[in-house]
Amino acid sequence: MSERPDHQRVPRLPRAAIHRLVRKVRKRPGTPPGTLIYTGPPRVEPATVHFMRYSKDRVEEGRMEGDTTDLLSPDSVLWVNVDGLHDVGLIQRLGGEFSLHPLILEDVVSVGQRAKSEEHEERLFVVIQMLTTDFDHGKVTSEQVALVLGEGFVLSFQERAGDVFEPVRDRIRSEGSRIRARDADYLAYALVDAVVDHYFSVLEELGGQVERLDLEVMEDPSQATMRAIHELKQEMLVIRRAVWPVRELVNGMIRSESALIRDSTKTFLRDVYDHAVQIIDTAETLRDVVSGLMDLYLSSVSNRMNEVMKVLTIMASIFIPLSFLAGVYGMNFDFMPELHFRWGYPLLVAVMAGTAGSLLALFRRRGWL
Amino acid sequence: MSERPDHQRVPRLPRAAIHRLVRKVRKRPGTPPGTLIYTGPPRVEPATVHFMRYSKDRVEEGRMEGDTTDLLSPDSVLWVNVDGLHDVGLIQRLGGEFSLHPLILEDVVSVGQRAKSEEHEERLFVVIQMLTTDFDHGKVTSEQVALVLGEGFVLSFQERAGDVFEPVRDRIRSEGSRIRARDADYLAYALVDAVVDHYFSVLEELGGQVERLDLEVMEDPSQATMRAIHELKQEMLVIRRAVWPVRELVNGMIRSESALIRDSTKTFLRDVYDHAVQIIDTAETLRDVVSGLMDLYLSSVSNRMNEVMKVLTIMASIFIPLSFLAGVYGMNFDFMPELHFRWGYPLLVAVMAGTAGSLLALFRRRGWL
Amino acid sequence: MSERPDHQRVPRLPRAAIHRLVRKVRKRPGTPPGTLIYTGPPRVEPATVHFMRYSKDRVEEGRMEGDTTDLLSPDSVLWVNVDGLHDVGLIQRLGGEFSLHPLILEDVVSVGQRAKSEEHEERLFVVIQMLTTDFDHGKVTSEQVALVLGEGFVLSFQERAGDVFEPVRDRIRSEGSRIRARDADYLAYALVDAVVDHYFSVLEELGGQVERLDLEVMEDPSQATMRAIHELKQEMLVIRRAVWPVRELVNGMIRSESALIRDSTKTFLRDVYDHAVQIIDTAETLRDVVSGLMDLYLSSVSNRMNEVMKVLTIMASIFIPLSFLAGVYGMNFDFMPELHFRWGYPLLVAVMAGTAGSLLALFRRRGWL
Amino acid sequence: MSERPDHQRVPRLPRAAIHRLVRKVRKRPGTPPGTLIYTGPPRVEPATVHFMRYSKDRVEEGRMEGDTTDLLSPDSVLWVNVDGLHDVGLIQRLGGEFSLHPLILEDVVSVGQRAKSEEHEERLFVVIQMLTTDFDHGKVTSEQVALVLGEGFVLSFQERAGDVFEPVRDRIRSEGSRIRARDADYLAYALVDAVVDHYFSVLEELGGQVERLDLEVMEDPSQATMRAIHELKQEMLVIRRAVWPVRELVNGMIRSESALIRDSTKTFLRDVYDHAVQIIDTAETLRDVVSGLMDLYLSSVSNRMNEVMKVLTIMASIFIPLSFLAGVYGMNFDFMPELHFRWGYPLLVAVMAGTAGSLLALFRRRGWL
Amino acid sequence: MSERPDHQRVPRLPRAAIHRLVRKVRKRPGTPPGTLIYTGPPRVEPATVHFMRYSKDRVEEGRMEGDTTDLLSPDSVLWVNVDGLHDVGLIQRLGGEFSLHPLILEDVVSVGQRAKSEEHEERLFVVIQMLTTDFDHGKVTSEQVALVLGEGFVLSFQERAGDVFEPVRDRIRSEGSRIRARDADYLAYALVDAVVDHYFSVLEELGGQVERLDLEVMEDPSQATMRAIHELKQEMLVIRRAVWPVRELVNGMIRSESALIRDSTKTFLRDVYDHAVQIIDTAETLRDVVSGLMDLYLSSVSNRMNEVMKVLTIMASIFIPLSFLAGVYGMNFDFMPELHFRWGYPLLVAVMAGTAGSLLALFRRRGWL
Repeated sequence: MSERPDHQRVPRLPRAAIHRLVRKVRKRPGTPPGTLIYTGPPRVEPATVHFMRYSKDRVEEGRMEGDTTDLLSPDSVLWVNVDGLHDVGLIQRLGGEFSLHPLILEDVVSVGQRAKSEEHEERLFVVIQMLTTDFDHGKVTSEQVALVLGEGFVLSFQERAGDVFEPVRDRIRSEGSRIRARDADYLAYALVDAVVDHYFSVLEELGGQVERLDLEVMEDPSQATMRAIHELKQEMLVIRRAVWPVRELVNGMIRSESALIRDSTKTFLRDVYDHAVQIIDTAETLRDVVSGLMDLYLSSVSNRMNEVMKVLTIMASIFIPLSFLAGVYGMNFDFMPELHFRWGYPLLVAVMAGTAGSLLALFRRRGWL
Repeated sequence: MSERPDHQRVPRLPRAAIHRLVRKVRKRPGTPPGTLIYTGPPRVEPATVHFMRYSKDRVEEGRMEGDTTDLLSPDSVLWVNVDGLHDVGLIQRLGGEFSLHPLILEDVVSVGQRAKSEEHEERLFVVIQMLTTDFDHGKVTSEQVALVLGEGFVLSFQERAGDVFEPVRDRIRSEGSRIRARDADYLAYALVDAVVDHYFSVLEELGGQVERLDLEVMEDPSQATMRAIHELKQEMLVIRRAVWPVRELVNGMIRSESALIRDSTKTFLRDVYDHAVQIIDTAETLRDVVSGLMDLYLSSVSNRMNEVMKVLTIMASIFIPLSFLAGVYGMNFDFMPELHFRWGYPLLVAVMAGTAGSLLALFRRRGWL
Repeated sequence: MSERPDHQRVPRLPRAAIHRLVRKVRKRPGTPPGTLIYTGPPRVEPATVHFMRYSKDRVEEGRMEGDTTDLLSPDSVLWVNVDGLHDVGLIQRLGGEFSLHPLILEDVVSVGQRAKSEEHEERLFVVIQMLTTDFDHGKVTSEQVALVLGEGFVLSFQERAGDVFEPVRDRIRSEGSRIRARDADYLAYALVDAVVDHYFSVLEELGGQVERLDLEVMEDPSQATMRAIHELKQEMLVIRRAVWPVRELVNGMIRSESALIRDSTKTFLRDVYDHAVQIIDTAETLRDVVSGLMDLYLSSVSNRMNEVMKVLTIMASIFIPLSFLAGVYGMNFDFMPELHFRWGYPLLVAVMAGTAGSLLALFRRRGWL
Repeated sequence: MSERPDHQRVPRLPRAAIHRLVRKVRKRPGTPPGTLIYTGPPRVEPATVHFMRYSKDRVEEGRMEGDTTDLLSPDSVLWVNVDGLHDVGLIQRLGGEFSLHPLILEDVVSVGQRAKSEEHEERLFVVIQMLTTDFDHGKVTSEQVALVLGEGFVLSFQERAGDVFEPVRDRIRSEGSRIRARDADYLAYALVDAVVDHYFSVLEELGGQVERLDLEVMEDPSQATMRAIHELKQEMLVIRRAVWPVRELVNGMIRSESALIRDSTKTFLRDVYDHAVQIIDTAETLRDVVSGLMDLYLSSVSNRMNEVMKVLTIMASIFIPLSFLAGVYGMNFDFMPELHFRWGYPLLVAVMAGTAGSLLALFRRRGWL
Repeated sequence: MSERPDHQRVPRLPRAAIHRLVRKVRKRPGTPPGTLIYTGPPRVEPATVHFMRYSKDRVEEGRMEGDTTDLLSPDSVLWVNVDGLHDVGLIQRLGGEFSLHPLILEDVVSVGQRAKSEEHEERLFVVIQMLTTDFDHGKVTSEQVALVLGEGFVLSFQERAGDVFEPVRDRIRSEGSRIRARDADYLAYALVDAVVDHYFSVLEELGGQVERLDLEVMEDPSQATMRAIHELKQEMLVIRRAVWPVRELVNGMIRSESALIRDSTKTFLRDVYDHAVQIIDTAETLRDVVSGLMDLYLSSVSNRMNEVMKVLTIMASIFIPLSFLAGVYGMNFDFMPELHFRWGYPLLVAVMAGTAGSLLALFRRRGWL
C-alpha cells in the first residue's frame, strides 16, 4: 500500500555501485608480470592520442600520428594524452618510445587500481581515480587516470574521452599563465590538482543528496528511502576507496628525492595535500551523517509501528468489552430477569458509555491519545 | 496523536547542520592555484579594516584607509584585523603590502577549511575555525579566522564583524598587561588561545542540551526527541571537524623552528595544546553520551510498544473468549436445553467471571499487570 | 503497569553523571594566561593547610600559618597539603613562596582537568583525578589533585578535605618505614600510587554493580534496568576520562630527565605504570560487558514482546472463528433449517471443539505453546 | 509458511565456515619444538613429489624418487613441489637433504597458519594461504602453501594435489620466457604472485554473491537471505585472515637483506605488495557492503511487519465497532424502542456505513492506505 | 511457554565470567610497595614446593624442604615450582634465598595481573595467565603463573596444583631430549610455550561451542540461546585479556639484552611469538563470529514475530468482517426484510464464503500464506 509514489521523490542511484566495488581489477592470475591486458569494460570507439607542446612563447596541439618522441625538445614541455586503454598495441608502442618499465604499462591498462605514485628509474608514475557525477542519476563514476612524468614531458592515459582537464588546457593556451613558464613537473601537479579539486564537486553533489534524504526521512520515510540511503552508502564506499590513498600519493610526490620534481612545485603539492586531507575529512563526515540517517529512519519506523499499534489497541480495548456486554444480553436464556426490567436497556447503554469513557480517560492519561 | 506539545520542549536546532558540513569549500576546480575566489555565503556589508598598534607605553587603534605598511615600526606591534573576506580586492592589496604568498591568500578567502598552521618564507600562517553558539537556537556557528604572523605584525581575517577577541583587545588597551610587553608572536598566541578557550563555552552549551535531552528521553520521549538527538549529533560533527585539527595546528607552532615564535611564547602554546587535548576529549565524551541517548531512546520506544501490546493482549484475551460464550447462548437452535435451565444464566455468568479471573491471575503471574 | 517495584532493585546512580562530564572546566575565555580563577563548585568551609616534615629520625606535622618556606631544610622532606582551591589568595601566596610558574597555579585551581605531568624549570607538576565511590549511591566522585615536586618538598592541592592519602600519612608516621628514608620524589610517587591504587576499588565497586545488573537483565528486566545500564555507561565515561591519561602521566615521570626524580624511584614508577595499564584494561573490559548487557536487554525486550504477541495470537485465532460460528446460528433468518435439527446444537459444539483442537495442535507444532 | 522456495534462490554456502575458522591449528601442547605432527584433515592418497629443473636452454621435469639434492646444479634452478603434508617421513627426509631448520619443518606440516616470511640461516621460508572457490557451492577453500627458497632451488609444500601454479609451470616450459632467464628468487616471487593474483578471482566470486544477495534483499528478503548474509560474513572472515598478513609477508621479502633475493626481483615484489594492499582494500569494502546488507535486511523486516500490522489495525478498527453496534440491536431487552421503528434498520445500516467511511478516511489521511 | 527444554541444549557456562573480569586484583590501596598480600580466593590445601634439577646426564626431582639454594650448582639447571600463593611466608623465604626484588614478590602473589615480562637486575620476571577449560561446563579458568629466570635456575609460582607443564616434565625426564642439553633460559621458554600452546586448546573448545550455538540459532533460537551467546562473549573477554599482552611479553623476552637469554633460545621465542600472534588473530575472529551470531539471533526473533503477526492478522482479518455480517442478521429489528427472504440465509453464506475467499487470495498475493 502507498508504496507507489515513493519512486518519484529522490532521484535513485542506478544499482551499479556494488558492481563497481568488486569488478575485475586484475589480469588473469598467473600470467607473467608486464603482460598488457586491458581489464576495463569493452569499448568500441578507437583510442586517440592528442598532444600539447608549449613553452613560454608557443603552444602547439593536435592529434598525434607517428612517433611521438620527435616532439620532445629541451626547451618546451610535451603533454601526450591517450583516451582509450583498450588499444594495448598503442600503449605498448608509446611505452617503447618513452622507455617505460613493463610494470608501469601493466598498471596503465589495469583499470580499477588503488591510487599511488611510484618512481621507476627516470620516470614518476601516478595512478589516480577521476570521479565524476552523472548529473541525471547522481551516480558517481570512477575512471582511472595514469600519469607518467619524465624530463620534459607528461603522458596521461584515460579510459575514455571526456575529463576534468579542460581548465588546465585553457590555462596552457592562455599566454602569460604561470603554467607556461614552468616545467613538466608543474603540469603533472596541475593535472593531479584538477582531479583532486573535482572531488569537492562530487562530495557537494552527494551532500545535496544527503540533505534531501535527511528531509525525506524526517517527513515521509518509506522503504524506498531506506534503499536510497543504502545506495548512497555504497556510493560513499566508491568515493572512499578513490580518495583515501590520494593523500599518500601526494605525500609520496612531495617526499620524492628525484630531480623530476622541483622544490618550487612542492609548495603547490603541499596545497594539494591539504585538499586531500580535507576531502577525506568531509567524506568521513558524510559517512557519519548517512549512518545517522539510517538510525533516524529505523527509529521512525519503530515510532510509526507504535502509532499503528496504539490505534489498534484503543479501538479493540474499547469495543471488545462493549461487544461482550451486548452479547450477554443477546443470549436466549429463559430466565434473564434484566431483560424484562423497564430501565434495563437505558441502564446498560449508560454502563457502556461509562466503560468507554473510563477507558478513554485511562488511555489519555497514558499519553496514547 | 499527542505529537503537538513536543515542539515546545527542547529548543530545536535549525536544519542547517548538514548544509554546513557539506557546503562548497573550494574554488571552481581547475582554476590556477593562487586565484582568489571567496567561497562563503554572499554578504552585503562592506569589508572593514581595523588596526591596533601598541608598545609598552602606547596604544593606537582605528579604522584603516590607505597603505597599511606605513604603520609598521620596529619597536611596536601592529595588529590588522579584516572583517569580510568577500572583498577580494582588499585582500589582494593587503597581500601585496605584507608580501604574502598567493597560496596563503587563496586559503584566506576559501572559507570552511581545516585548521592548520603553515610556514611560508617569513610568514607563519594559521587557519582556525571560530565556533560560537547562537543563544536563541543553540545552533553552533563556525566562522573561519586566518592569522598571519610576521616580524612585528599580525594580520587577522574574519568572515564577518563580531568575534571572540574583545578580551584580547581589552588586555592590549590596559596598561601594564603582559601582552603589551611582548612581541607579535604573543599576540598570535593570545588570538589562538581566545578561539580555543571559546570552544569550552560551546561545549558547555551543548552539554546543557545533552542534559535536557537526557531528561526528556527518560521522562517523555517522542519522535521529536529523536530528531533533536539526530540534530545534536550533527552539531557534534561540526564541532569535531573544527576541533580535531587544532591540536596539530598548535603542535606545529610549538615545533616551529622559525625565529618568528620565541621560546618564551612556546610555554604558553603548550598550555593551549593541553586545552586542545582536553576539548577533543570532552567532545568525544559528549559524542559517546549522545550515542547512549539514542540507544536509550530506542529501548524506551520498544518498551512502550511492549506496554501497548500488553494492554491489547490482556483486553482481547479476556473478552474474546467471554464473547464467544455469550455468542453460543445467543444461538437460536430449537434444542438447547441449557437455555431453559432455571440457573443457566447465573451459572454462565459465574463461569464467565471464573474464566476472566483465572486469565487475570495468569497475566499477573507473568508480570503483565 | 508493574513499573513500581523496579525502583527498589539496584541502587540507582544520581543523575549528575552527564553534568560532571560537561561541567565548566576553564576560566572565562580570553582572560590572560596565569589568571587564577577557581572553576569548581562553590564551597563554604575555609581552605586549610597542613604540613608534614620528616626525615629518617623525626616527624613533625601540624596546621600551617605564616610563611611555609621556613620549614624547608636540606635534610628533611616537607609535604604541604592544601584542602580547598577556592581560596585563590592562599594559592597565590604559596605559589610565590615556592616560586611556581603562573601557568602551574592556573592549572591548580582549574578543576576538571585532564591528568598530566609537566616540568617547569625546577618543578615537576602533576595533575590527577582522584576517584572515590559514594557508598550510598554507588556514584563515582572525581576530585582534582595537583602535586608539585621540588627539591626537598611536595605540595599537594585538593578540592576539599578527605582523601586517599591516609595510608601514606601512616607510613610516614611509622618509624623505620621506607618512605622515611627516601627523598621527596618517593613521596610524590607514593601519592600518585595511592590515587592509582584507589582506582582498583572504584572499578571493583562498579564491577559489583555490573554483576547485579547482569542478574537483573537475565531475571527481571524493566525500563528501570535500562536506565541503570545507561547511567552505568556514563559512570564508565567519567572513569575512562580520569584513567586513560594517567598512563601517559606516569610515563612522563619515568622518562623525565630532571634530577628531581631519582632512578631508584623510577623502578617504583614503573610498577605504577603497570597498574595504570591494568586499570585501563579492566575499565575497557567493563565497558564491553556493559555494552553486552544492553544488547541482552534489548533482546529480552524483543523476546517478551514475542511472548505477548503469541498469547494474543493464540487467543484471538482460536476464539474469533468460534465466535463467528456462534454468530451465524444467532441470526434470525426465517429459513435456517439447521436451527431446527435435533442434533444441530451438539453437532455445532463438536465442530467448534474440533476447530479449537486443530488450531491448538497447529500452534503446538509451531512451537508457540 | 512460504519458507520453502527460499532454498533455491542463492546457492548456499556449506556450513563449514566456522569450522575452518577455529580448527585445530597446532600440535599437541607441550610437545618439544620441531616435532613434526601433521595437523590437517586425514588424507588417503599418497604424497607425491614432482620436480622441474630449468635453465635458459633446458627444462626437465618429472616425479621424483631417491635423493633430491642430486638435482642441484649451479647453473640451473630446481623447483621441488610436494603434494601431501601427511607423509611426515617424506618431509623429514627432504628437510635433511636441503638442511632445513626443525622449526621450518614443524611449520610446514602445521596447516592453518598465519602467512609469514622468515629467514633461517641460508633459507627464506614463506607460509601463505592459497584460496580457491569451489564453483559448485561458492565455498572458499583455504590450503596452506609453504615455500622454501635456497640458493638455486625452491621447495613448495601443499596440502593436496591441485593448485594455482599451472600458469607458472607453463611459463617455465615455454622457451624464451623471462622466468627461464632468472634465478630461483624470481621463481619464488612468481609462486607468491600466483597465489596473490588468485585472491582477486576469489573476491570477484564473492562480489558476485554479494550482488545477488543485494538484489534478493531488495526484492524478496526472507530468513534464508539473512542466513546467506551471515554465512557470507563468515566467508569474509576466512578471506580476511588469509589476506591481511600477506602484505607484511611481501614487505618482509622486500626488506630482506639476504643475498637470496636479488634487487631486480624486488621491483616485482613491490608490484605484489601493491596487489596485496588492493586486495585488503577490496576485502574490507566487501565487508562494509555485507554489513550494509544486514542493515537493509533488518529494516525491510521492520517494514513488512509494519505493513502486516497496518492491515490488522485497519480491519479490526473498522469492523469491531460495527460488530458492537450489531450486537446492541441483537439484545433481547423487552423495552428497546428502536427495534420497533419503521426506519430503524436502514438508519442503523446508514450509521454503520458512515462510521466505516470516516474511519477509512482517517486511515487514508494517515497514509496507511 | 516452551522455554523449558532450552536449558538442556548447549551446556551453559557458569555465571562467574563477570566476576572473574572485575575481581579484586590488587592489595589494599596505599599499603607500601613490596607488601606481600595474596589477592586470590582463599585456599585450604597447604602450599607445596617441588624441584627438578637436571643436566645432560642426571635428573633429580622431589618435594622440597629446607633451603633451596643448596640445590644450585653451576653445571645443572634447577626448576623450583611452587603450588599455592597464599603461603606468603614461603614466598618471602624463597624471595630471600634467590634474592628477588620486593616488587617481584608483590606481583607474584597479586593474582589476576596482566601478562608481562620485566628485568630486575639479574632476574627476568614473567607473569602469564594459564587458561584451562573445565570440560564439564566449558568454563574457561584463568590461573596466574609467575616465572623467575636467573642464572642456572627457574622458579615458577602457581595459584594451585595442576598445570599444563606435565609434558615439559616428561621431556626433562627423558634422556637425550634437547631440553636436557640446554640452559635455564630454554626451560623458561619451554614453560611459556606450554602455556601459550594450551591457548589453542581453549580456543578450539570455545570454537566448538560457537559452532553449536550457530546451529542452535539457525534451527531453534530461544532466549536461552541469547544468554549463552552473551556468556560466550564474556568468556571471550576473559581470553582476550589473558592473550593480548602475551605478544608483548614474548617480544620483550626476544628484545632482552640481558645475558640470561641466549641467542639460540631467541629463535624458539620467535616461534612462540608467531603462535601468540596467531592466537590473538583466532580470538578476534571468534569474537567477530559471536557478534555475527547475535545479529542473526535478533533477526530471527524479528522474523518469528513477523510470522506470529501474520497468523493473527490473517485470522482476524478474515473472521472479524464475517462475524460482523452474522451480527447484523442477528439483530432484532421488527422490519428487516432480508430475514424473511427464502434464500436470504444461503445467499448470506455465499457472500461470507466470497469475502473469505477474496481476503485469502489477497493475502496469498502478498506472500503471507
